[in-house]
Amino acid sequence: MPVLDLSSSAVDLTRTICDIPSVSDDEGALADAIAAAVADLAHLEVYRDGDTIVARTNLGRAKRVVIAGHIDTVPINANLPTRDVDIDGEPHLWGRGTVDMKAGVAVQLKLAVELTDPRVDITWMWYDHEEVAADLNGLTRLARTRPDLFAGDFAILGEPSNGQVEGGCNGNLRAIVRTSGTRAHSARAWVGDNAIHRAAPILARLAEYRPRDVEVEGLVYREGLNAVRIAGGVAGNVIPDACEVEVNYRFAPSLDGEQASQHVREVFAGFDVEVIDLAEGARPGLDAALAQEFVRAVGAEPRPKYGWTDVARFSAMGMPAVNFGPGDPSLAHHDEERVPLRQIDDVERGLRAWLTQS
Amino acid sequence: MPVLDLSSSAVDLTRTICDIPSVSDDEGALADAIAAAVADLAHLEVYRDGDTIVARTNLGRAKRVVIAGHIDTVPINANLPTRDVDIDGEPHLWGRGTVDMKAGVAVQLKLAVELTDPRVDITWMWYDHEEVAADLNGLTRLARTRPDLFAGDFAILGEPSNGQVEGGCNGNLRAIVRTSGTRAHSARAWVGDNAIHRAAPILARLAEYRPRDVEVEGLVYREGLNAVRIAGGVAGNVIPDACEVEVNYRFAPSLDGEQASQHVREVFAGFDVEVIDLAEGARPGLDAALAQEFVRAVGAEPRPKYGWTDVARFSAMGMPAVNFGPGDPSLAHHDEERVPLRQIDDVERGLRAWLTQS
Repeated sequence: MPVLDLSSSAVDLTRTICDIPSVSDDEGALADAIAAAVADLAHLEVYRDGDTIVARTNLGRAKRVVIAGHIDTVPINANLPTRDVDIDGEPHLWGRGTVDMKAGVAVQLKLAVELTDPRVDITWMWYDHEEVAADLNGLTRLARTRPDLFAGDFAILGEPSNGQVEGGCNGNLRAIVRTSGTRAHSARAWVGDNAIHRAAPILARLAEYRPRDVEVEGLVYREGLNAVRIAGGVAGNVIPDACEVEVNYRFAPSLDGEQASQHVREVFAGFDVEVIDLAEGARPGLDAALAQEFVRAVGAEPRPKYGWTDVARFSAMGMPAVNFGPGDPSLAHHDEERVPLRQIDDVERGLRAWLTQS
Repeated sequence: MPVLDLSSSAVDLTRTICDIPSVSDDEGALADAIAAAVADLAHLEVYRDGDTIVARTNLGRAKRVVIAGHIDTVPINANLPTRDVDIDGEPHLWGRGTVDMKAGVAVQLKLAVELTDPRVDITWMWYDHEEVAADLNGLTRLARTRPDLFAGDFAILGEPSNGQVEGGCNGNLRAIVRTSGTRAHSARAWVGDNAIHRAAPILARLAEYRPRDVEVEGLVYREGLNAVRIAGGVAGNVIPDACEVEVNYRFAPSLDGEQASQHVREVFAGFDVEVIDLAEGARPGLDAALAQEFVRAVGAEPRPKYGWTDVARFSAMGMPAVNFGPGDPSLAHHDEERVPLRQIDDVERGLRAWLTQS
């Protein structure tokens, strides 16, 4: 089993953690290493469920903060092991997971071990299966088996936010827009009805669609509506009788799931639309006192989070939640994923300051 | 090994042959049965190459006619064994292969055995792999290994033509029309460039396309341009960087392959177009004396053939060639494929009369 040296810097710890591959469904080795690192610390009560590890202080503080990070990554694409690279004179760590989100996990893990006497009680959560279907997500499982562990007044997800505070998140909807037709031999196409040709207006509407910018509690959320998959066809000599376009709608947290579904149905009026995945967004929640205090302490400018993250889960539980982690979110899942070392240190310093200030 | 009873009627022989499944690449059992049926006949010289069987008379006649039929079918879809069905009071044989083209093969086989003294020399060909890629076609192989067997003055393909004479055939072109873009996380779609959205004009042009009717030597060929496949997409949260549309152009025999390719490139101007399969059509060739004599003898009205068939192969060798077989071509490859029994008898009678008239 790989051993994590918690006395090393957050940067070195990030490097070590990234070099333990943990693509979704294969988080075991990293989960074991994290569990071992926090196992024997007097200030932490540890609970493990599968590859999700929860470690919490029980100091009787007035407030409790949940700080969470997922330990899985999207598939490796020849971008491990990590490498140290220099970009415009700035040192970076390059490789799968450096941005999404093992730098965040490393910072959290280091602070979990070192902060024996924080000003608030802290529930640290490191969880599996965030990069795949929501029902596999370690937090989904934990919420079912140990909902009590989610008790708290404020939540911080270590998702990449360039070291800034990104509030709330857009919702995420996927739907299949279908056309149907009639098969025929393509030598006599007029006998059939081409379902791919019938999809022309679907692509035209997508190409013409202008996504909205929506202001919610002072932050401007940028939406998006995109085809993420298209498929149709039977054989090279057959007029196809079915075509489907999978669309992905990222919607501002001012819309609930029903409103978002309605919008997609309106855009594709006249077509068969089936919503196959729906996760509501989260309002920024930055009006909460603890959230405002946090933003001031880390000295960051709040921004909207575009991508859906598990902050929505905490938000749905009525807990203000923000994203705060090293790394440029636009490099998440990117083959050239890389994090500036400075951001790792900055996030560590910010979190440490806020969690220990008196 | 199944044994064919050549003393049975062409209808019964069709039933027997259809009930020996012979989907492309699995023609062995049927080929064995055919080879056995013609093996010991004094008037036929037999040659076998794989699952292609050639049987020919060598009577020193002034003219030689090639009569050919493929023995493979498209995949079975719960439509075997055959059934006798009545449609509007007319008896039919229902099931895979009844139309395309085992009724034609049965007629040919029966005549091959019975016509010991025809007025022309005859080269009978039963061949494999017609329903798949052209380079697998038994005639492609035979033309390479035994081009001498293709010697002849006129060719008749037993492809379904409703018992009429269908002259020539449309050409057949398949091409991939591609778009490209830039991948990005779909939560930040504006960072990427959606290749599926970029395919909107491709589908719009296909949907708006009006195929031409082209008169060639008195027959009107109906063209067709269709998408037969579309594919694009990486994952549910990724802006796709590639999309491809496979199009199938059925073009009148007045165009050669280069002109047909040029037409497709013009329709999709501005896009990357790659021609992946191209078979030129065949002009009807009905001005040849032997062809006119044949049309008169079988008492049929010549029509254009829309689908590409191996007549094009003979036409390319300078031999007039027609399609003449039982079955409605629009039911070829259809799950409800079925042939009127009367057409089987009519085609047998027509061919027999012409081949034996003095």
